[in-house]
Amino acid sequence: MTTRADMVALDEADPLAHHRTRFHLPDQLIYLDGNSLGAQPVVAKDAVATAVDEWRDLLIGGWMEAGWIDLPASVGAKVAAIIGAAPDHVLVCDTVTTNLYKALSAATALRPERGSILIEEGAFPTDRYITASVAERMDRDVRVVPRGSLVADHVDDSVAVAVLQHLDFRTGELFDMQDTTSAVHAAGALAIWDLSHTAGVIPMNLEEADVDFAVGCTYKYLNGGPGAPAYVYASPRHLTEVNQPLPGWLGHADPFQMTEVYEPDAGMRRFMTGTQQIISMRALDASLGVYEGVDIHLVRAKSQSLTDHFIRLVDERCEGLGLEVISPRDPELRGSQVSLRHNDAAEVFPRIVTAGVRGDFRTPDILRFGFAPLYVSHADVWDAVDSIRSVVEANG
Amino acid sequence: MTTRADMVALDEADPLAHHRTRFHLPDQLIYLDGNSLGAQPVVAKDAVATAVDEWRDLLIGGWMEAGWIDLPASVGAKVAAIIGAAPDHVLVCDTVTTNLYKALSAATALRPERGSILIEEGAFPTDRYITASVAERMDRDVRVVPRGSLVADHVDDSVAVAVLQHLDFRTGELFDMQDTTSAVHAAGALAIWDLSHTAGVIPMNLEEADVDFAVGCTYKYLNGGPGAPAYVYASPRHLTEVNQPLPGWLGHADPFQMTEVYEPDAGMRRFMTGTQQIISMRALDASLGVYEGVDIHLVRAKSQSLTDHFIRLVDERCEGLGLEVISPRDPELRGSQVSLRHNDAAEVFPRIVTAGVRGDFRTPDILRFGFAPLYVSHADVWDAVDSIRSVVEANG
Repeated sequence: MTTRADMVALDEADPLAHHRTRFHLPDQLIYLDGNSLGAQPVVAKDAVATAVDEWRDLLIGGWMEAGWIDLPASVGAKVAAIIGAAPDHVLVCDTVTTNLYKALSAATALRPERGSILIEEGAFPTDRYITASVAERMDRDVRVVPRGSLVADHVDDSVAVAVLQHLDFRTGELFDMQDTTSAVHAAGALAIWDLSHTAGVIPMNLEEADVDFAVGCTYKYLNGGPGAPAYVYASPRHLTEVNQPLPGWLGHADPFQMTEVYEPDAGMRRFMTGTQQIISMRALDASLGVYEGVDIHLVRAKSQSLTDHFIRLVDERCEGLGLEVISPRDPELRGSQVSLRHNDAAEVFPRIVTAGVRGDFRTPDILRFGFAPLYVSHADVWDAVDSIRSVVEANG
Repeated sequence: MTTRADMVALDEADPLAHHRTRFHLPDQLIYLDGNSLGAQPVVAKDAVATAVDEWRDLLIGGWMEAGWIDLPASVGAKVAAIIGAAPDHVLVCDTVTTNLYKALSAATALRPERGSILIEEGAFPTDRYITASVAERMDRDVRVVPRGSLVADHVDDSVAVAVLQHLDFRTGELFDMQDTTSAVHAAGALAIWDLSHTAGVIPMNLEEADVDFAVGCTYKYLNGGPGAPAYVYASPRHLTEVNQPLPGWLGHADPFQMTEVYEPDAGMRRFMTGTQQIISMRALDASLGVYEGVDIHLVRAKSQSLTDHFIRLVDERCEGLGLEVISPRDPELRGSQVSLRHNDAAEVFPRIVTAGVRGDFRTPDILRFGFAPLYVSHADVWDAVDSIRSVVEANG
């Protein structure tokens, strides 16, 4: 049987343990919801205060003098380093919804002769909704890959674009970016990846995987703060052909000419809609600093250790309590999240929160626990399972 | 001849003068660019710090416990009070670009049999670009109202939607919302107004004017901060029919059911894309507080006085310097901005800034000066013209 001392020993040997002090974490709380909203890096507060002071002191001059106008690109370069893209191929702006609409519309237009857009049944709802909207507006149909089936078995030469989840947000199942992209390309289709649930915890290289487009949010493992701006990536081989449906003046080749006809910027700026929210962007900018110098492979190894031990402790200590691990048991097939099913999940969830373990609940019966390796410890895992066991036991 | 003492006397009688202390204004600067980025309300800094602390302390719980999830609607209600709409008909989210795309796409779909979208030649570039994009994607043509022509003379039964500027951003000319909307409706078309340059300085009532849709930014006279989120208004008579192209999960009737098929919220939330940027939104939320209890008619009267005196002082004190007033001289036809044309505008503009007067420059030869009545004084107007005169004289 695994003991708490075993877990403390793992923490003592953890090469990432010192990062925990770079985050604010409330006392008496084990935070296992960094897959929904990352904890606050200590540097965020001053960065936000600086942005507010820039506005106060520089007023309109802030756009040039404080570099606000460059933030979508410069913060994009920091995200690019984490997701394996060249610095000038990622733009930070807008929401995931909006960026997916832009990227999917642009990608679909690149395959005018193909009638379908493919998406997985278990995709995040927004991705489903945007796919349906783009398909309707561009006169394509939606092909849904049933749960449990492989994209590779459903993509063919009638598919224009595949909208792909890097991770199933319900189960935490991780999908292979390289293999899936290759299968999509073999059918002559384009691949758009939603990286919201994996950026910052899963090593990835969009360029090596030859991904066409990608989008993601920055408020989960990237710790950008509530509603922090999203990002969009486009492969350089498509960029000059991108004709996205929300052309704003800041995406124009020469914005301050204010011409009547839109001429897109040669680079990623062509994905810009309008003026971006600078104060929120500064929080993200600073928060991404915690990833500087961090080896993402160490993050992945710790994530696998945390989730392996969580599953093992649920197996060892929660037997007979009706908790079913629905995440893959093979760590190579699992993201940084473990989902448990329980018949009374809706009832026990708030009691688990009250007991000091913050995960989340997904209807109808799923308890999700996310493990952000930069600030979650092995001792947290032990203590969390201990609390979950007590609550579920008391419920029975 | 008008004297500085005359201007000081006007300030002493100004019922809005006390609002100036509610803003941060740098010493030695006359800020006449509130039409581009409003000055910072004193309350903004604490509101932003509170949002950062909520994130630190509440983490994911902030969405419900701190009311983050309601901010698009609750901040929307504050904007609604300023633009003359019912509190639940305005949603704060995204950028103007994105909101115009959503509203224009939805409006155009309501007139399926009509082949044209109408827009004015002098419209803000983004509005031109988005109109062209929606027209192309929905297989309509764009009808451009030539500069100097009336919308009423160009709208007919082939027009689906008119995209209307409340103010010409170059000249400061103000257009009549009621009359133009009536003319558009008489032709059976729908009216979408861009209120970016007038909300907060021009009394308006979207409901009385029977406006169909409206969008606007909040970082100009509404002082929301750099890139503060935009807003969208929809008339209640269209709302249930709105099918906008960027449906995100937060716009779903029951977001946390996370269903596969989108079912829009019954109200304005159907305009939501994804998660909104809370830290920036809190700055706007607090900043809108400066409008509470302010009579917008007093704001308009002071605006007209400021711009009247600016024009009069340019006439009296800058004769022969090549400065041409291109804004309407009739105060009823003018927003809170005065534009001057000068052959050497590009050269004198930075020198005017150095001399302590911050306006802005619009290519090729326009100097724009905006007058935010809550913090600009008549003495500022005198001092600004004095500086402009010195710089332009030295240039000659």
